[in-house]
Amino acid sequence: MKLNLDCIPCFQRQALQAARFISNDEELHQKVLREVMKKLLETNWNLTPPELAHEVHRIVKNVTNEKDPYERAKKESNDLVLNWYPALKKKIEKSKDPLRTAVRIAIAGNIIDFGALEKYNIEKTIKKVLKEKFAIDDYKKLKENIDKATTLLFFADNAGEIVLDKLLIETIIERKKLDKISFVVKGGPIINDATLEDAAYLGLFELPKVEFLKMSNGEAGTGPERNSETVKFWIKNHDLVISKGQGNYEGLSEHDGLFFMLIAKCSVIASDLDAKVGDIILKYK
Amino acid sequence: MKLNLDCIPCFQRQALQAARFISNDEELHQKVLREVMKKLLETNWNLTPPELAHEVHRIVKNVTNEKDPYERAKKESNDLVLNWYPALKKKIEKSKDPLRTAVRIAIAGNIIDFGALEKYNIEKTIKKVLKEKFAIDDYKKLKENIDKATTLLFFADNAGEIVLDKLLIETIIERKKLDKISFVVKGGPIINDATLEDAAYLGLFELPKVEFLKMSNGEAGTGPERNSETVKFWIKNHDLVISKGQGNYEGLSEHDGLFFMLIAKCSVIASDLDAKVGDIILKYK
Repeated sequence: MKLNLDCIPCFQRQALQAARFISNDEELHQKVLREVMKKLLETNWNLTPPELAHEVHRIVKNVTNEKDPYERAKKESNDLVLNWYPALKKKIEKSKDPLRTAVRIAIAGNIIDFGALEKYNIEKTIKKVLKEKFAIDDYKKLKENIDKATTLLFFADNAGEIVLDKLLIETIIERKKLDKISFVVKGGPIINDATLEDAAYLGLFELPKVEFLKMSNGEAGTGPERNSETVKFWIKNHDLVISKGQGNYEGLSEHDGLFFMLIAKCSVIASDLDAKVGDIILKYK
Repeated sequence: MKLNLDCIPCFQRQALQAARFISNDEELHQKVLREVMKKLLETNWNLTPPELAHEVHRIVKNVTNEKDPYERAKKESNDLVLNWYPALKKKIEKSKDPLRTAVRIAIAGNIIDFGALEKYNIEKTIKKVLKEKFAIDDYKKLKENIDKATTLLFFADNAGEIVLDKLLIETIIERKKLDKISFVVKGGPIINDATLEDAAYLGLFELPKVEFLKMSNGEAGTGPERNSETVKFWIKNHDLVISKGQGNYEGLSEHDGLFFMLIAKCSVIASDLDAKVGDIILKYK
């Protein structure tokens, strides 16, 4: 997805939020904001939003000398959602269409997003998403693809959220045995995106036949970028590909054969999807 | 009020909005945004939000070579609200406490604000404000001051909105005869702020004993700034001073003896008032 000019002020809002997570020092906040603005002015804007976000969050880390501004926020959302795992597992098992319910709950988890939002209410969101009509709903196609698939590639989005992704994957396996599950996390911290440490902490290692792939957080050596040949190869090499969240949609929407699951959390994404902010999306492309 | 760092990305959002009002040319939008960012980086941020907004909107006008980006938007809101004048006038006259109803309707008009918002729904807002409890409510003090006053200084905010301000002033005069009404508008266009042309178009000249004062829109020769000695003198020289909207609150909150009427439309203002976004404010200071 092409960058929209609205992303430019939004990145600055994100950078300020990250700086405020780290410290109460207003001079530091101002320094971060000014350095981010300088970097944005120096940069060509023909990038995808996640590519430019990488630049922005690298500046935040460099100016504040803090490797993971969202560490505490991630820990909180991890623990919050982990507590709900048993009850939500039961809810899925007891429902008429367990796959549909698991899809709904996994998409609801996408509200845990410090990139697009300042605050979120995951409990309220789950209740909403369990009832609401999807703005784009390729569920039938998803079921068909699951029933034919033997390998799953899963692009994860945020920490916390991946507990609910685990529930979805377990529900998929109940329906159709898979030979391989490739679960993609970030190769290092950026915003509240899930990393290997989050996957370990949240029990994703318990999934059968799972392997973990690492994608770039913008720092050297953390993995391939979304629009790389490597990622294209991953996608080609799996039968079923699920992509969670806005960042992955922005970075992967040029590829084909993916199921995008997300809540549209900003007007730029909503407009690209011909949907409204707050809409629930299950889109096959 | 001191500038908050959140205002910096918000100014850029405003500049983009203004550029889009003028033209569909994305290259021009990008040029405006980049020039505004450069200007913001060059500027010291120890200003009030309206002072920095002046700088920003001056850049927009210079880069686009367009004196009044909001001209059409203002015309639309002027005509919309003007149509409702007779019905709202009756509503006020028939109500148990006409002054209270007029205050509510005038504050509802403050939703017509292209600085803080992208869209607004004035009809819905009037219905909401007619029923809702105010977050800060110095109505009793306002009534007392009206009953003692002989002169009124009224700082207007947006075009369209001033039709509803006219209703409020007429209701005040029904209660207490005034010797002088000084109605403050902008000395030239900025965002959708009311100018003398709007006041003329919307029938404000029909008010008895009214004179119009002009305040700066950031361009040379358009009038004094809010924090000037001249404006301080205006305030000292009137018995009753009413200030509408966020911009006037931001620029005039250092003065004393004013009634501030507004809807809190952004988190920066809300937090300064110890209120929430969307709250209705009638504050004496």
